[in-house]
Amino acid sequence: MEFPSKLIENAVEELAKLPGVGKKTALRLALHLLKNESEDTFLLAESLVKMRTEVKHCKQCHNISDTEVCGICSNPLRDKSLLCVVSDIRDVIAIENTSQYKGLYHVLGGVISPLEGVGPSDLHIDSLLERLLPNSEVKEVLMAISPTMEGDTTAFYLTRKLRDHQNLKITSIARGIPVGGELEYTDEITLGRSIVERTAYGRA
Amino acid sequence: MEFPSKLIENAVEELAKLPGVGKKTALRLALHLLKNESEDTFLLAESLVKMRTEVKHCKQCHNISDTEVCGICSNPLRDKSLLCVVSDIRDVIAIENTSQYKGLYHVLGGVISPLEGVGPSDLHIDSLLERLLPNSEVKEVLMAISPTMEGDTTAFYLTRKLRDHQNLKITSIARGIPVGGELEYTDEITLGRSIVERTAYGRA
Ligand SMILES: [Zn+2]
Ligand SMILES: [Zn+2]
Repeated sequence: MEFPSKLIENAVEELAKLPGVGKKTALRLALHLLKNESEDTFLLAESLVKMRTEVKHCKQCHNISDTEVCGICSNPLRDKSLLCVVSDIRDVIAIENTSQYKGLYHVLGGVISPLEGVGPSDLHIDSLLERLLPNSEVKEVLMAISPTMEGDTTAFYLTRKLRDHQNLKITSIARGIPVGGELEYTDEITLGRSIVERTAYGRA
Repeated sequence: MEFPSKLIENAVEELAKLPGVGKKTALRLALHLLKNESEDTFLLAESLVKMRTEVKHCKQCHNISDTEVCGICSNPLRDKSLLCVVSDIRDVIAIENTSQYKGLYHVLGGVISPLEGVGPSDLHIDSLLERLLPNSEVKEVLMAISPTMEGDTTAFYLTRKLRDHQNLKITSIARGIPVGGELEYTDEITLGRSIVERTAYGRA
């Protein structure tokens, strides 16, 4: 694609480095910014730089945070006996938005993937095990890791690491038919698991 | 959506003001920037601010440009007898990328749309008429405006404004079946026009 302006070309190239943004979309975004008040562009640029420079990772759960310890970890109303293990910050946001979970989190920062060269030492596993030492307040670890091959491998790895913790309950998010989902459109594996792991009628 | 960090929330809000970017996409983009080198975020922000501050509009054709007069208008190899009227800068880029056009452009900056309150005076029509005064080098005006209702209205308005220019040829981009398109999937109006405006066999 040829551009009538080197300045636009640069902006398009930088925008097109974002995931899911092709050159055409990048051009549309650049032209949108040109059409609007320059203030809009300045606010966007400033918010990105400020975020990139100032955002921290919670030193306890590795969630993103504006402070050393995140708002969830430091909230006295959260249930410290329950720890939810997720691979990604997005999972924390998704679970928080359900308003169904009141425990703490631990963000692994990915899943074990030999193909992509991600081993256990690349994830926040050591700090998870530290949080689960015998004197820990945690009584239950809820594995909320996506049921992909890599996700299942990661959950299996963690479960094995934790098998000596006699008093620790290890649970997993339920697999089954999505709420509002129809049986006939559900894949066989999910449908199969929803039968094997059937729950008593009326259970929440 | 609740965010674990005010800094991320701000960035997501600014990103979500971009066209076609919802909150979920904005969050994905923000987390991508957080995962990568801060240098990437700085380059992106800088390129946007630089573009917004420094890009000019060509004072002749209203195309975007790094200089007072754009590279197309100032190129001595372009055919100054041929002027292509488009509504948007994106159309210039699209036509340039075909490598089939060697004339000049005039960017209207939109189309006449009474519903959206866009009248002729909101577009670069006066400067177009000035470029077509009797002593002008332009011999042909090629209307390359999208065949929507507003686009057709705009082309019709311009054609009427130019009807006294005796020696000016007014043409329009050809309507017809897209190259590689199949007859049976073409809408009736396009198919109809492609028959009415049929061309001699073998013509380029
Ligand atoms: Zn935390
Ligand atoms: Zn120009």
